[in-house]
Amino acid sequence: MPKETKKSVISNSVIKRLPRYYRFIGALLRQGVVRISSEKLAEKMSLTASQIRQDLNCFGGFGQQGYGYNLEELKKAIGSILGVTGHCKTVLIGAGNLGKAIAAHMDFSEYGCELIGIFDSDEEKIGENVAGLEVMHISGAKSFFEKNKPQVAILCVPETSAQALADRLVLWGIQAFWNFTHYDITVSHKNVVVENVHLGDSLMMISYALSHSEENE
Amino acid sequence: MPKETKKSVISNSVIKRLPRYYRFIGALLRQGVVRISSEKLAEKMSLTASQIRQDLNCFGGFGQQGYGYNLEELKKAIGSILGVTGHCKTVLIGAGNLGKAIAAHMDFSEYGCELIGIFDSDEEKIGENVAGLEVMHISGAKSFFEKNKPQVAILCVPETSAQALADRLVLWGIQAFWNFTHYDITVSHKNVVVENVHLGDSLMMISYALSHSEENE
Repeated sequence: MPKETKKSVISNSVIKRLPRYYRFIGALLRQGVVRISSEKLAEKMSLTASQIRQDLNCFGGFGQQGYGYNLEELKKAIGSILGVTGHCKTVLIGAGNLGKAIAAHMDFSEYGCELIGIFDSDEEKIGENVAGLEVMHISGAKSFFEKNKPQVAILCVPETSAQALADRLVLWGIQAFWNFTHYDITVSHKNVVVENVHLGDSLMMISYALSHSEENE
Repeated sequence: MPKETKKSVISNSVIKRLPRYYRFIGALLRQGVVRISSEKLAEKMSLTASQIRQDLNCFGGFGQQGYGYNLEELKKAIGSILGVTGHCKTVLIGAGNLGKAIAAHMDFSEYGCELIGIFDSDEEKIGENVAGLEVMHISGAKSFFEKNKPQVAILCVPETSAQALADRLVLWGIQAFWNFTHYDITVSHKNVVVENVHLGDSLMMISYALSHSEENE
């Protein structure tokens, strides 16, 4: 198994590129493609064929000279390295517009997670059905956590409550945050995994690109 | 004005870091902080003071030895470089859960954009009020675009319709995409600005980190 023998030597920079490979390969499979050469894959992903061969060689010889990559096997191998075959128990904190959309929009199981609870402090939201789960009051979170031991928290709360909430969640055993707030969790919690989603940042990069393309016209 | 004199020499890597500075400075100002030393800012942002001084020196001498940075001025200068003082006319295509949440959740004006229209192809959604705008049918988009000339399109549609839609939007004058679909717009449209938001990618990085931390225990 390439997964077992090779993954410990994969560099962080390759790991960071794996989700993109995983996405492209998934899309190709959905289009009915079963095999692809590194050249064709490179073209689709705007990479060079040698970069692809180098990256994918890190975890075993999936490409056969003259035959290309078997996409099904490649997806499985990359998925296994990424841990998407697991079921990280995940809770959502904050059932506002964004929280609800994330709960409803994301196919968690596809990414190795399982949404098991949704919490909010707003009485009006308690009991609402979101993505098949009933929104619970945050006051009941501690006992829920003790019983169900979620590992991941999706943070969709206002900035003002983010810090105190993150502190409590870490205390209650949360090991990773999918953070949609502006609060920088790592400042107080060095040992938790944090993936920040700063939607505004990418919107600012668009404004930047457009304002500067106008200057150059 | 530092903006005018210096911005043409700022490197891309500095530009990419600017949204993060902009966010942190905004948060500090909201907390009532008006001045900060590079050392203190470095601590808050998990950077080194020399890195901050180097980055911020790129666009003028905002830091005064012994006084630190005037945060209000710094935010204005960074904002001006990022183009957040502009009003890029923006349309949202796809008023599903995610599209609605983005329309409702984002303060577009804070990022230099202005949401002027929302479109969907689902008859049931037409006329719905989302973030103060009535959802319009996509069949009316072309004439709306001719009249209002939006520059940015937020793409929140299923993967299957993304390609055909992106082609039409470019034809109708869209210059930049905030892309929430899995479709890689740049493959067919090299000259448009694209910021992809692949929410699943960061969730996979969480699964990866957790599955590998377990291995190491």
